[in-house]
Amino acid sequence: MKANYIKNFQEWVKDFSFYTEVRVRFSETDMFGHMNNTVSFIYFEQARIEYLRHLGVLMPLAAEHEAKSIPIVADLQCDYINQVFFNDVLRIYTKIAKVGNSSLDIHYLAKNQKDEVCFTGRGTLVQMDIRTGKSVPLSEEEKAQLVSLSTISH
Amino acid sequence: MKANYIKNFQEWVKDFSFYTEVRVRFSETDMFGHMNNTVSFIYFEQARIEYLRHLGVLMPLAAEHEAKSIPIVADLQCDYINQVFFNDVLRIYTKIAKVGNSSLDIHYLAKNQKDEVCFTGRGTLVQMDIRTGKSVPLSEEEKAQLVSLSTISH
Amino acid sequence: MKANYIKNFQEWVKDFSFYTEVRVRFSETDMFGHMNNTVSFIYFEQARIEYLRHLGVLMPLAAEHEAKSIPIVADLQCDYINQVFFNDVLRIYTKIAKVGNSSLDIHYLAKNQKDEVCFTGRGTLVQMDIRTGKSVPLSEEEKAQLVSLSTISH
Amino acid sequence: MKANYIKNFQEWVKDFSFYTEVRVRFSETDMFGHMNNTVSFIYFEQARIEYLRHLGVLMPLAAEHEAKSIPIVADLQCDYINQVFFNDVLRIYTKIAKVGNSSLDIHYLAKNQKDEVCFTGRGTLVQMDIRTGKSVPLSEEEKAQLVSLSTISH
Repeated sequence: MKANYIKNFQEWVKDFSFYTEVRVRFSETDMFGHMNNTVSFIYFEQARIEYLRHLGVLMPLAAEHEAKSIPIVADLQCDYINQVFFNDVLRIYTKIAKVGNSSLDIHYLAKNQKDEVCFTGRGTLVQMDIRTGKSVPLSEEEKAQLVSLSTISH
Repeated sequence: MKANYIKNFQEWVKDFSFYTEVRVRFSETDMFGHMNNTVSFIYFEQARIEYLRHLGVLMPLAAEHEAKSIPIVADLQCDYINQVFFNDVLRIYTKIAKVGNSSLDIHYLAKNQKDEVCFTGRGTLVQMDIRTGKSVPLSEEEKAQLVSLSTISH
Repeated sequence: MKANYIKNFQEWVKDFSFYTEVRVRFSETDMFGHMNNTVSFIYFEQARIEYLRHLGVLMPLAAEHEAKSIPIVADLQCDYINQVFFNDVLRIYTKIAKVGNSSLDIHYLAKNQKDEVCFTGRGTLVQMDIRTGKSVPLSEEEKAQLVSLSTISH
Repeated sequence: MKANYIKNFQEWVKDFSFYTEVRVRFSETDMFGHMNNTVSFIYFEQARIEYLRHLGVLMPLAAEHEAKSIPIVADLQCDYINQVFFNDVLRIYTKIAKVGNSSLDIHYLAKNQKDEVCFTGRGTLVQMDIRTGKSVPLSEEEKAQLVSLSTISH
């Protein structure tokens, strides 16, 4: 549990409250008999999108065809703690850990039905202009709102 | 080998010549230790696109952003004959089996490195207008070209 | 709606009752802006497994490591009726349509949140002996139970 | 290019020589029109496995059914630099960056057909005993061999 984005694991875990539930699909296992390592990032994406929708802030998922800017994944990390198996029911917790000028850091925590930590992660989202490909600053209002929702002060 | 789209298997196999090679990825296996059944359709898509590009006909893959019509998959079938395993090298053969007014039937044949038939398949592509969602007839020229490339007369 | 496994669509639809709900993931879309055609088979697998578990019959999913026989997909078909988009909530209905000596035919129906039929499908599962790779007949009890659950007589 | 695993980018890039080529599949794009962020990890896995096979060292991929230990992914990171599109041909470079007691750090570099850096990454593999789930130390021979292959001294 020495991931570089976690200073104190007990503290870090406490800040999560929102989660998305997923059941591991058969097609998401591999011949080692467990969830393939690439799948955690699929869950992260699903959880992140549900979280942003839940917050109703910023980054409109660009599901809207007229969006001028979209949230782009700048980086991703995942640390695998306990193996995950077919049919496991995971809670993918998400929280905002940092608000930048045009970006957002989201942290992830996955627990199984036995409440065991299976994997953790983080990643930065950047608001990008579709036409120019350049980052778009968040408005002061958005920043303030996101900071208030985040766990930065904790 | 009683797939409803194959009358005479020996004849049917002979008509293929174009193929795309794929190596089965670890992430494409499942806990039963073989290639997951959903993966054959990923290979079909890859092979179909390479085949259409090779032919240089019709359906411009809509990779071009200004395309007014795109090829839409109307249906797909796959018959699994022999199991496929991690690291197997498959040849995914494709051929045009039928040319409709605004559609195209493509047949698929997958063989492994031992030249064993692993799975077969077929599916219809329809040329669709992006704005209206309706089918777009092929031009007489395109039809003639596709028929000449197809195995219909065989 | 002329799929070869559907005689009368109105009748065919009525026989479904069990369903699995899925929400279309962002990673399951493609650059055409809709659900990629390969994804329906992932949903079929998930729905089929939940259905068999729900029935509590046969084919123990081989999730049990000591299983001597596993259910193998012999063939699959999908007919795409209406496009599916990111975040659509689909009900994947499943029913047993035929019981063979060592196999089972399952039919699929996917409806979106507007109750529109998005795609339909079918496929055969065969009970296979892990060691020999050959099909294993269902017991008379299992067959009787499956037939009673199926829509064969309808 | 401020990934925490790269001190000097120019130096870091120079140490790669082995690569695996992949062509981005249509099904690997998403509705934003580019390669979905989850796909880089699929490529990392493919490249890593080909690299280990190429080296002929250690971690026998557990493709062998009698393997007592298998390589497990302990963590993964990816930094996205330039967008990747359908049909892009990527070279996924891999190198051993660190050899631990029972683990291995692998670094990744993805370049497209224009020789642009698209994404970079890293991750730790741990040799795990299948029965106990515990890490298995590398032999001194294996370690020496891996260190000689690695870029540690650079």
